Amino acid sequence: MLPSLLISIPDGIIDLSWGHPSPRLHPVAALRKAAEYALTDGDATPPAYGGTVEPQSLFVSAGASQAIDFATTLFTQTGDTVLVEEPTYYLIQRIFEDHGLNVAGVPTDADGMRTDALESMLEEGAVSRVRLVYAIPTYQNPRGAVMPAERRRHLVALARRHGFIALADEVYQLLHYGDPPPPPIATFDDSEEGCVASLGSFSKILAPGLRCGWIQARPALIQRFANAGLTASGGGVNHFTATLIHAALEQGLLQANIDKLRRVYGARVNAISASLRANFGNAAQFQPPGGGYFVWLTLTDGADTSALLPLAQKAGVSYRPGAAFSASGAFGSSLRLSFALYERDMLQEGVRRLAAAVAP
Amino acid sequence: MLPSLLISIPDGIIDLSWGHPSPRLHPVAALRKAAEYALTDGDATPPAYGGTVEPQSLFVSAGASQAIDFATTLFTQTGDTVLVEEPTYYLIQRIFEDHGLNVAGVPTDADGMRTDALESMLEEGAVSRVRLVYAIPTYQNPRGAVMPAERRRHLVALARRHGFIALADEVYQLLHYGDPPPPPIATFDDSEEGCVASLGSFSKILAPGLRCGWIQARPALIQRFANAGLTASGGGVNHFTATLIHAALEQGLLQANIDKLRRVYGARVNAISASLRANFGNAAQFQPPGGGYFVWLTLTDGADTSALLPLAQKAGVSYRPGAAFSASGAFGSSLRLSFALYERDMLQEGVRRLAAAVAP
Repeated sequence: MLPSLLISIPDGIIDLSWGHPSPRLHPVAALRKAAEYALTDGDATPPAYGGTVEPQSLFVSAGASQAIDFATTLFTQTGDTVLVEEPTYYLIQRIFEDHGLNVAGVPTDADGMRTDALESMLEEGAVSRVRLVYAIPTYQNPRGAVMPAERRRHLVALARRHGFIALADEVYQLLHYGDPPPPPIATFDDSEEGCVASLGSFSKILAPGLRCGWIQARPALIQRFANAGLTASGGGVNHFTATLIHAALEQGLLQANIDKLRRVYGARVNAISASLRANFGNAAQFQPPGGGYFVWLTLTDGADTSALLPLAQKAGVSYRPGAAFSASGAFGSSLRLSFALYERDMLQEGVRRLAAAVAP
Repeated sequence: MLPSLLISIPDGIIDLSWGHPSPRLHPVAALRKAAEYALTDGDATPPAYGGTVEPQSLFVSAGASQAIDFATTLFTQTGDTVLVEEPTYYLIQRIFEDHGLNVAGVPTDADGMRTDALESMLEEGAVSRVRLVYAIPTYQNPRGAVMPAERRRHLVALARRHGFIALADEVYQLLHYGDPPPPPIATFDDSEEGCVASLGSFSKILAPGLRCGWIQARPALIQRFANAGLTASGGGVNHFTATLIHAALEQGLLQANIDKLRRVYGARVNAISASLRANFGNAAQFQPPGGGYFVWLTLTDGADTSALLPLAQKAGVSYRPGAAFSASGAFGSSLRLSFALYERDMLQEGVRRLAAAVAP
């Protein structure tokens, strides 16, 4: 039942740290059907070099990580600064550091990035050479927070005023389990040159191994990607897979898969939330997420979740400690639980073990 | 019969400028068979996040262009210098410039990069901050030249002595139409830390739209790619497609396709070479290539092939002028012809039109 490739989980551990979907949710049959449909004899389109002509506000990426890497190449120089949320996606910092950037944090609250704090940092000169601001506005990883429309507008206004590109990692945008979130931040950008790139991905709504996603932005900004050297040399960055996904779209397989994921993950959110309330009571605080993959749990007694991790693993459960999500090592009494990998009964058992280990 | 996506060719023109294979040579049926084989129900491996555990000297890339972009991110800073062959692949410079690098040329001859000239440039301090040297050692684009073993060894020795990474673009390595070329340059590197990355690609031997290739290098150098932020975040850079290619390999479809390409392209080299000799006589010089996609033709009278291009197009044929392959605008009386896209009869007709237009 566990993925065999990227992650390894010791026997007996319910590892709630991984933001990976359950293998049973990978739409293998749908992909085969899409491949059969796309790869009909006599149609040499999918294997050929892919054109990059897309609707003027869209660019097909090889996944959100590639889009972030690509934007960093195009819009920054060695020694520039990128601002990220505190806490943020724990693997993002290394991508920026590989480009020689300095990484600094912007505070968040239950509504995501605090754009007032961002404005102060920029205007008081606390940071210099800010070329990128990386945000996860919808079902933030790890907090689960959603930026309201007014903050989205404020972020766009700051990008225009201060000349940075806002990179909005919106891979969970379509994974809502109740009311939909506000629209992608790119839709708030009406500037001529473009200052926001909203990054979507088929990783979360179809299958992560496809390494295919999209960039939504103003046409002038999309042209920066379309005219880049990498695009000119190779054509579309993941053309063959994009063709299969197009076939899945045409056959209605993608929408059916999203509907299924909303149903399955929505039921898991309810199950893990109820289980957390029942087992932790007042010993921990959390906000049931409206979408995405994660629950962000904060221990009321302020205990150190990094120090508690070995105890939890001994009790047969694992999680990702809050300190992993912050360059400054803050959030020491928080932890992230993923409900993407396990079914409800295992989530409930995992929470029981967790509560017994960290809040006995 | 012409590809519909990345390139557009006006009616009536035989366009010999494009290094793209004939659509009929895309193995659509083989890919469908591979997809059926790989995407069996119950096997959720292909769509999952791809692991990056590879044999210790190999890393799966998303094609040679992505590998070059990736290496540039990891091994250079803004303002560094990359050296390229004169002439070189005409789309490579923009990839390096997107990373803020300075690009300078190293002379070539009929045996490819003149490593003696490279050595002089490095030791006389004619260039500074050289972190990368980009070479196409086998069936060089556009010259068709092959670097002999002793030059390969010399390049590796210079990389060790001067602390640069030699990026060897070896995408034509397996497309030989007679004796095989010397082995990949990476096999000449026995240093501990690694100073050579040989870049292979399934674009040339299976289908370019797959965007999948490999990096061959010493284990320590491979680890730089495997431990990069982009790899950590997304897993294998083109995992799903790599799984399909693995299925094609297991079923023997890849070797069958390479055998076919060698036969078809080899016959085309013979046809275009005979036609060039018959139509140009002493008016042009060329060396029939032992592999790859291209013939490099130099007009004996020194005429300017950029200026002649409109005349040729009026006569119903097109090519890529030599000046496109050089930052310095040299090679003005040379031109590159591709035999990858058209069948023999069209190549012969194209050469007839070409000779009539540029060497009447």
